Amino acid sequence: MASPAICDRNNRNDGENGSWSMGLCGKVMNKVVEFPIKLKKLGQDDPRRVVHSLKVGLAVLLVSLLYYVQPVYNGLGDTTMWAVITVVVVFEFSVGATLGRGLNRILATFLAGALGFGVHHLASISGEIGHPILIGIFVFLLAASVTFIRFFPRMKARFDYGLLIFILTFCLISVSGYREEEILEMAHKRVSTILIGAFTAVFVCIFICPVWAGDDLHNLVANNIEKLGSFLEGFGDEYFKVAGNGESNRAHLQGYTSVLNSKQSEETQANFARWEPRHGKFRYRHPWRHYLKIGNLNQQCAYRIETLNGYLNSEIQTPLNIQSNKVQELCMKMSSESGKALKELAWALKTMTEPCAAASSHITKSRAAANNLTSMFRTSAAAAAGEGGYQVRLQDMVPAVTVASLLSDVVAYAEQIEKSIQELASFPHVQFKSAEPKTLQSCNTSSSNVGPHHVITMDRLASLQVQEPHKEIGTKLQRVSSAI
Amino acid sequence: MASPAICDRNNRNDGENGSWSMGLCGKVMNKVVEFPIKLKKLGQDDPRRVVHSLKVGLAVLLVSLLYYVQPVYNGLGDTTMWAVITVVVVFEFSVGATLGRGLNRILATFLAGALGFGVHHLASISGEIGHPILIGIFVFLLAASVTFIRFFPRMKARFDYGLLIFILTFCLISVSGYREEEILEMAHKRVSTILIGAFTAVFVCIFICPVWAGDDLHNLVANNIEKLGSFLEGFGDEYFKVAGNGESNRAHLQGYTSVLNSKQSEETQANFARWEPRHGKFRYRHPWRHYLKIGNLNQQCAYRIETLNGYLNSEIQTPLNIQSNKVQELCMKMSSESGKALKELAWALKTMTEPCAAASSHITKSRAAANNLTSMFRTSAAAAAGEGGYQVRLQDMVPAVTVASLLSDVVAYAEQIEKSIQELASFPHVQFKSAEPKTLQSCNTSSSNVGPHHVITMDRLASLQVQEPHKEIGTKLQRVSSAI
Repeated sequence: MASPAICDRNNRNDGENGSWSMGLCGKVMNKVVEFPIKLKKLGQDDPRRVVHSLKVGLAVLLVSLLYYVQPVYNGLGDTTMWAVITVVVVFEFSVGATLGRGLNRILATFLAGALGFGVHHLASISGEIGHPILIGIFVFLLAASVTFIRFFPRMKARFDYGLLIFILTFCLISVSGYREEEILEMAHKRVSTILIGAFTAVFVCIFICPVWAGDDLHNLVANNIEKLGSFLEGFGDEYFKVAGNGESNRAHLQGYTSVLNSKQSEETQANFARWEPRHGKFRYRHPWRHYLKIGNLNQQCAYRIETLNGYLNSEIQTPLNIQSNKVQELCMKMSSESGKALKELAWALKTMTEPCAAASSHITKSRAAANNLTSMFRTSAAAAAGEGGYQVRLQDMVPAVTVASLLSDVVAYAEQIEKSIQELASFPHVQFKSAEPKTLQSCNTSSSNVGPHHVITMDRLASLQVQEPHKEIGTKLQRVSSAI
Repeated sequence: MASPAICDRNNRNDGENGSWSMGLCGKVMNKVVEFPIKLKKLGQDDPRRVVHSLKVGLAVLLVSLLYYVQPVYNGLGDTTMWAVITVVVVFEFSVGATLGRGLNRILATFLAGALGFGVHHLASISGEIGHPILIGIFVFLLAASVTFIRFFPRMKARFDYGLLIFILTFCLISVSGYREEEILEMAHKRVSTILIGAFTAVFVCIFICPVWAGDDLHNLVANNIEKLGSFLEGFGDEYFKVAGNGESNRAHLQGYTSVLNSKQSEETQANFARWEPRHGKFRYRHPWRHYLKIGNLNQQCAYRIETLNGYLNSEIQTPLNIQSNKVQELCMKMSSESGKALKELAWALKTMTEPCAAASSHITKSRAAANNLTSMFRTSAAAAAGEGGYQVRLQDMVPAVTVASLLSDVVAYAEQIEKSIQELASFPHVQFKSAEPKTLQSCNTSSSNVGPHHVITMDRLASLQVQEPHKEIGTKLQRVSSAI
C-alpha cells in the first residue's frame, strides 16, 4: 500500500513539470490496488459469475483429460484439441446461449462437412489443373454468400455463429482435402471431437447450477416493472416536498434509468431462451417474445418517467403555497397508486401468480385520481375566476399541468402493462397460479370493495378496452373541453 | 410463382380443418419467393454489405492459396488451416473491429503460448505422475480466473475475444505439449499461421473499400441529431395542423425512434473506433468517447420527443378555435427553430465545419420563443381575467402547457447539443474547418444581426453558461412566478 502513496507524492511534487512516467506509475499502482476490490464486487454483484467461472474451468479440465486417456487419444490423435476448442468457445453464461452455440456448431459442422466433401469430390474428378480452380471458385462464392446472409437480422440473432462455423468447416474440409487422402477420416474426427466438446459444455452447463436465460429474461422484465413502480411510489413525496431528506432519497429513485436501455439485453435473452428446454415454471414453447412486448411498454413508460425525473431535478417545483392544494394530493395519488400497482404487477409476474385484485384496485384508484384531476382543473378554474384568485392558480398550473399530464400517460401505460401481463397468463403454454387464499385476503382487505380475485380478473378482462394510452387521455380531456 | 398460390389456396380450402403440412408448404414457399427480394433490399440498404461479403471471399481465397504454394505448405503443413480459421473469425465489417480482433488474437496467442510453454516446462520436470496433475490444476485455475475476468465491463468491451483466445491457446499448448515433443515448433507454427491470417484479413479490410467504425460513429451521431431536427421541424405543422396531409407526413416524422435505442451501437462503434489508425478527417487519438456524450444528449432529447409524439398521436390536439392563437405561433416557432438549429448542427458535425452562425441564431430564436411563451402565459392570463375569457384559455392550456414545457426541455437540450459540438471542435486532436465564406454569407443573411462566424463562436463560447437544461427552464419559470 506504500507504493501508490509514494508514486502519488512524486506525481504531486513534479506538479506541472508533469513527470509522465510517475503519473503512469501512480495510475498503474492504483489500478493494481483497486483490482482485488473490483474483483470482489463483481463476484458479490452476481455470485453466479463465480460459479460460471468454476464451471468453465471444470469443463475444460474434463475435456483436457481426453489427452491422458490412451484409447481416446489413439483414436482421435491431435484432433482432440478440437474438443478443447469447442468447450472454450461454446461455453456461455446461460444454458440457452450454450445450447444455441453448441447446436449451431454441430449442425454447421455436419452440413459444411458434407458440402465440403461433395465439392472436394467434384473437384477431384476435374483433373490436376481444374481442381484448385474449382475449389477456389467454390470457396470464394460460399464465403461471400454466407457472409452476406449473416447480415439478415433474423439470421444474425439466432444463427450467426453457425454461419461462421459453416464457412470455416467448408474451407477446412474442401481446401485441406487437396492434400489429405483420408478426408473422410478427418471429417469424422472433426465431427466426433466437436460433439464431445459440445456435449461436455452443455452437460456441465445444465447439470451444475444452471443459469437459464429464460429465468433471467423473466426476472429482468419483472424487476424493470418494479423499478418503475419504485420511482412512482417515491416521486410524489419527492416532488411536492421540502428539503431535509433530499439527495439520499433522490439517488434511491434512479433505479429506473436501467430500464431505458434494456431493450437490447431483453432481445438477446429472448433469443437465448428460445433454445432452452422446459425448466422450472416454464414449459416448452413459453411465449418468450411476449416479454419483449411487456418490455417495450416498460420502456415507453420509462421515457415518460425520465421526463418526469427532469422536473424533479429542476428548481421549478410546485411552490410551497399550494402544498395543501388538491392538485398536489391528486398528483401524489396518481403517482403512488400507479407505483403500487406496478409493484403488485411485478410481484405477480415474478411469482407467476395471477395479478391480484390489489393491483387492479390500485390502477382503478390512480385512474380515478387522473380523472378527478382533469375535472379539478375545470372546477378550480371556475372557482378561481369567481374569487379572483386566478393568477396564483395559473402560475401553479404551469408545472403542475405538465407533471399531471405525464402522470396521466404513466397511468395509461400501467394499465397497458397490466393488460399485457393478463395476456401472458392467458397463453396456452403458460400457467399462472391463482392467488393463494392468504394473499387474496390481503388483497381484499387492501381493496375491500372488490370481490374474490378470479371473478374480478374475468370482469376486468372483459371490460378492458384495447386502446392506445394517449387516445384514452385524449378522449377524456376532449370531453372536459367540450364540457367547458 | 405458381406453387405458393396453389399452396395458399389449399391452405385456405382446408380452412379450419387445418392441414398443417399445407400451411407449412405455403409458408416455406412464401419465404423462398421473398428471399431474393429481401436479399436485394439488404444490399440496397447498405451496399457496403455486398462489398464486405466479396472482401471476405477474397481474403479466404487468398489464404487458401497457401495450401497450393509448395514451399509454404512444406513449412507449415496442416497447421496452414489456422490461417484460414484466423481469417474467417477475425474479418469483421469495420476496420476497427477487424484490427481489434486481429490484435487480440495475436497478442493473446503470444502471451498464452509463452505461459503455456512455461507451465509445460514446469510440469515436465515434476515427474511422470506430477505432470498431468500440475497441468490439470493450471488449466482449471487459468480457465476459471480468465473467464471471471471476462465479466469486467471494460475487459468485455475491448478484450473479450483476446481473453477467450488466451484460454484456448494456453490449453492447446500446455495440454497437447504432453504428447508432442516439438512443442516449440508447434507454438511457432501456430503463431506464424495466425500472423499470416490476421495480416491477410487486416490488409484486405483496410486496403479495399475500408469501412471505418469511426466514420460510422461520426455519421450515426450526426444523423441522429438530424433525425431529431426533422421531427421538430415537422412537429409544429403536424400538431397544430390542418386536415389533409395526415398519415403520410406522420410516418415521415418517425425517424427519431431509432435514436431511442442507439446507445448500445454507439458504444460498440466507439470501442471499435479506438483501435483504428488516423484516417480521413480523423487524427490519431480522436476523442471518440466524446461522441457518447453527444449521443447521450441525443437520447435524452429523443425521450422528450417520444413523449411529444404521444400527444401527436392522441386525439387531443389544440382545438381549432385557438388556431390563430399566439400559443400556437410560439410553440411552432420553438419547434421549428430548434429543429432547424439541430439540422444545422448535424450538418456542421457531419462535415466537421465549425457550427455556423445560423445554428446559434436558430437556437437564440427558439430560446426567445420559449421565453416569450412563458411570459405570454402570464400576460394572456391577466388579460383573460379582465375580459372574462378565462375559461376558454385554461381549457386550451391543458395540452398547450404540456407541449410547451416539453418543447422548452427540447430547446434546452438543443443548446446542450450545440455546446457539446463546440466542445468537440475545441479538442486538441480535432480540426473543424472554419465555415467557408459562401456558407458564412448564407449564415449571415439568415441571421443578419450577427457578425462574422468565428467572432460569434468565440463570443458565444465565452457567454455560454454550463448549466443543466432543467435548471435553466426552472430558473426562468421561477422568475416568471415571482414576477406574477
